[in-house]
Amino acid sequence: MTPASAIPLDRINGSSRQEFLGHLGAVFEQAPWVAEAACEKRPFATVATLYQAMADAVNAAGHVSQLALVRGHPELGGKVARAGALTAASKSEQGSLGLDRMSAEEFARFENLNAAYGKKFGFPFVICVRRHTRDSILHQFEARLNNDADAELAAALREIGLIARLRLVEAIDGPGAPKTTGRLSTHVLDTYHGRPAAGVGVTLYELGTSARGLLTQARTNAEGRTDEPLIAGVPLRIGTYELQFAAGDYFARAGVAAADPPFLGVVPVRFSIAEPEGQYHVPLVMTPWSYSTYRGS
Amino acid sequence: MTPASAIPLDRINGSSRQEFLGHLGAVFEQAPWVAEAACEKRPFATVATLYQAMADAVNAAGHVSQLALVRGHPELGGKVARAGALTAASKSEQGSLGLDRMSAEEFARFENLNAAYGKKFGFPFVICVRRHTRDSILHQFEARLNNDADAELAAALREIGLIARLRLVEAIDGPGAPKTTGRLSTHVLDTYHGRPAAGVGVTLYELGTSARGLLTQARTNAEGRTDEPLIAGVPLRIGTYELQFAAGDYFARAGVAAADPPFLGVVPVRFSIAEPEGQYHVPLVMTPWSYSTYRGS
Amino acid sequence: MTPASAIPLDRINGSSRQEFLGHLGAVFEQAPWVAEAACEKRPFATVATLYQAMADAVNAAGHVSQLALVRGHPELGGKVARAGALTAASKSEQGSLGLDRMSAEEFARFENLNAAYGKKFGFPFVICVRRHTRDSILHQFEARLNNDADAELAAALREIGLIARLRLVEAIDGPGAPKTTGRLSTHVLDTYHGRPAAGVGVTLYELGTSARGLLTQARTNAEGRTDEPLIAGVPLRIGTYELQFAAGDYFARAGVAAADPPFLGVVPVRFSIAEPEGQYHVPLVMTPWSYSTYRGS
Amino acid sequence: MTPASAIPLDRINGSSRQEFLGHLGAVFEQAPWVAEAACEKRPFATVATLYQAMADAVNAAGHVSQLALVRGHPELGGKVARAGALTAASKSEQGSLGLDRMSAEEFARFENLNAAYGKKFGFPFVICVRRHTRDSILHQFEARLNNDADAELAAALREIGLIARLRLVEAIDGPGAPKTTGRLSTHVLDTYHGRPAAGVGVTLYELGTSARGLLTQARTNAEGRTDEPLIAGVPLRIGTYELQFAAGDYFARAGVAAADPPFLGVVPVRFSIAEPEGQYHVPLVMTPWSYSTYRGS
Repeated sequence: MTPASAIPLDRINGSSRQEFLGHLGAVFEQAPWVAEAACEKRPFATVATLYQAMADAVNAAGHVSQLALVRGHPELGGKVARAGALTAASKSEQGSLGLDRMSAEEFARFENLNAAYGKKFGFPFVICVRRHTRDSILHQFEARLNNDADAELAAALREIGLIARLRLVEAIDGPGAPKTTGRLSTHVLDTYHGRPAAGVGVTLYELGTSARGLLTQARTNAEGRTDEPLIAGVPLRIGTYELQFAAGDYFARAGVAAADPPFLGVVPVRFSIAEPEGQYHVPLVMTPWSYSTYRGS
Repeated sequence: MTPASAIPLDRINGSSRQEFLGHLGAVFEQAPWVAEAACEKRPFATVATLYQAMADAVNAAGHVSQLALVRGHPELGGKVARAGALTAASKSEQGSLGLDRMSAEEFARFENLNAAYGKKFGFPFVICVRRHTRDSILHQFEARLNNDADAELAAALREIGLIARLRLVEAIDGPGAPKTTGRLSTHVLDTYHGRPAAGVGVTLYELGTSARGLLTQARTNAEGRTDEPLIAGVPLRIGTYELQFAAGDYFARAGVAAADPPFLGVVPVRFSIAEPEGQYHVPLVMTPWSYSTYRGS
Repeated sequence: MTPASAIPLDRINGSSRQEFLGHLGAVFEQAPWVAEAACEKRPFATVATLYQAMADAVNAAGHVSQLALVRGHPELGGKVARAGALTAASKSEQGSLGLDRMSAEEFARFENLNAAYGKKFGFPFVICVRRHTRDSILHQFEARLNNDADAELAAALREIGLIARLRLVEAIDGPGAPKTTGRLSTHVLDTYHGRPAAGVGVTLYELGTSARGLLTQARTNAEGRTDEPLIAGVPLRIGTYELQFAAGDYFARAGVAAADPPFLGVVPVRFSIAEPEGQYHVPLVMTPWSYSTYRGS
Repeated sequence: MTPASAIPLDRINGSSRQEFLGHLGAVFEQAPWVAEAACEKRPFATVATLYQAMADAVNAAGHVSQLALVRGHPELGGKVARAGALTAASKSEQGSLGLDRMSAEEFARFENLNAAYGKKFGFPFVICVRRHTRDSILHQFEARLNNDADAELAAALREIGLIARLRLVEAIDGPGAPKTTGRLSTHVLDTYHGRPAAGVGVTLYELGTSARGLLTQARTNAEGRTDEPLIAGVPLRIGTYELQFAAGDYFARAGVAAADPPFLGVVPVRFSIAEPEGQYHVPLVMTPWSYSTYRGS
């Protein structure tokens, strides 16, 4: 279910029932009845009201249907994944995190959690993978194992709603989409010269428990910003990140007489993201001998 | 030549020539004639004037004696070191950097530099190891290879002076010692509560090109400082360091409602030291959402 | 010459010579020959090229014409002003600074400067008043008295160019106007809560040597900014300013437990503007116990 | 009761009853019975335990004696003050605030508060003047008028205790004095050069509702500190203050190329003190284009 397949809300409103289900029947995993219920409520003025109609259908469904909905999801990183039985949407989502390329050890850890979870709750662990890093999934997995059955069913349905929301927004071009994306941006100010710092190399890493992954590299423009936000248009994954700013190179190019080696070379700024749909602006205000950073706006 | 063997300046002033040379003859490597020259100038009011008398003797010596002085030093990390032929003082100094525990690859790099250097200058590369990290030694080694013969002899003699100065200060208890030690300290302020941040875990690493080494760990006291400076009483090694402050744990213990995970967990502050005898104060002024740092005093 | 009278560049390009001079003849004070020269160069693609044509005419004119151009300007705050003989444009410009409402003492100071200046140079002191506060005019007046005749004629012509540029931009609606306006803005961040500070009272004063004048008051919106820039659309006057931020009231409303009285109540930020056409962004990053500010962008 | 008259605790412990009362009988205003009670408890190991013995005597006294104790105090700034009937200690304390040099208008305001207070409570308003500015006294006066009789008697006794504590510490030289003094200090760091800012002019004002009073002027030394704390050895008066740092002059002397006028000239830092016995460290970390300040330690 890629953005390429997005169709206009107008067409969704005017399509046949069959077309509607063909396009949106898989928004809730293996549960076309959710789309069927929403189909009756057409037309929708916004994508958000269409999503709400689907969510209402899930909420109105009985315990048995809700349980079946959860059970329709694959195990996370589990046997199903290895066996290639994932739906296209699930495969794309799980793959983005590298859950399909785990080491044997990590795989074993997920297997153990899956087993304990399945034994306790009788349904697979569901989480909206695109809002998480591998570390935060493990953290959630372990935390949710402590829930009682009712709280966990509610938690699973919330995650299913988050998954469906992302799928829906990609499936439809239309006004009033629910908020499904966050934004991470930066800005570098040079308070030695009293101007934006242009040409500063900026590198963004995701920090896992055991490794760091390079996410993106950029260089600040004349306004001290990157031409594009560091991340935008997708949910930010809950997890820990590190920005590295090449402050020393910048001041050296500017001809600032400094110590050898300069007091500040690469400036790392480490922070965690807790709100996948949030705006994170993380600026750096620097001289060759000092800097400050903060969650800005 | 350990601090335990330090003897008072008064005794140095009053000792026999033989005792004097026995105690200070090795301050300049394999060159007891330097101590002999200084012996004639007794008494000394301060350790600094004693050191100056030795330095004067080196400066007054002719080219041939100066060359011989440089040639009396071992190759850095070289064959001599492996063969166990280092003087006690040289062994202690080089060992402190792990030069005697290098990998084969690093060893090869030093060997190549030693070979090129010996071929160009006809004497071994001398550097006051206790003022450097392994990275800054390699940096110096490569830079000094570009010197012409006169400039490099002068550079080698400067380093020999720095080595001797450190040995002398350890050998004598007395007033007016030349400054041979630096200081690295920190201070953590909590501007959320408007008070020093007590109980913050602080870890200091040395960052090499290929690895980081743990240097020390501490916890801030009620004044937001560590009970002891992070480094004091020795020269600071020229190189790059990282302080890590456990900001997230601190605010969690203080019961500050924060995001999950908190925006700031471990705060890394990376900086380089260029002056081994300098005072480096690197404070952190922080809230759960911001921090600043600078070279303070 | 108010914005209301602005006419499109297209019409300027296509108008009769008489209309052209009627509209732009007064852009250079009492010197319609400047507009006449530019009239011959039509059409102009941008306002900036029209301005350049006028400036070229002034530069190409001989010493006598240039002197006459300068002499066509009124004395600053002088007898002419009191006698009501100012052109409409000059009156509006000088009045904006309160030069027509000076105390007797200030008036005397200007009179003395005018007299000394007239005696030395033989023409009146010309300055683009809208780019200055009263203090910076006095500062410029005293500084320029030290010029020699050639340097001062050049200075006067530069100021006449700045005056004409502002008049031209107001007289014509069109693309590619030369930059004649600056911008002063602010932004308040609350790093206690990690969010923009909304509802903070912000007051801007101009600080003169002897008094302060209230320029504007605003309140930050949900993004921590003021709905409109503090100053925009006009040149910033060279001089000293103070922003006052009602930080104490903000944190009290937010229910932050603080000292009584709170450590920070009204936060004054005092700064000077040197570039009338510059972008000055002066943010405040604050907690109840700390703040920082800087020239941002 | 000046520090000059301080006598050692040992002598207090060993003196005759008459000497004891002669020296300490006036510590509690017009209530020698408090000192008499403490006299019986000698010897005292510390000044703090002597103070506690006096405080115990007041707490143990009945309502009638406590009321009489309060009534023994002069009206603040009142008729008694003008009539010259103050005890020497009260006169010194009230005079330090300028309460004996009030304008007619301010005097009237105090008179009205005194009248309303006397009518409601039947005793004079007592406050430890040396811990307050004029503004904070008025603030307290108005706030305490809202108390009921019991709460206000307790408040008055607390203030009497604070007054006595200050008098006692001045009367006796000895170990273990209760904490009666605060401290205000500053520190200026130059993060343009990465060093302490030496030679920065620092001026401290007390800000009243209607006027500012110059308290002290200093210049930073080579460590960026003032040779003496700005205030020490006395209680800090609750109230609002402004530090002004001559940042522009400092950077101009250092030859830093800056705007004309420089972005930062005089940097005002306004803050309030709420704890008379507190440590207030208010540093400035600055470049020509930025600064930060905070309550440090």
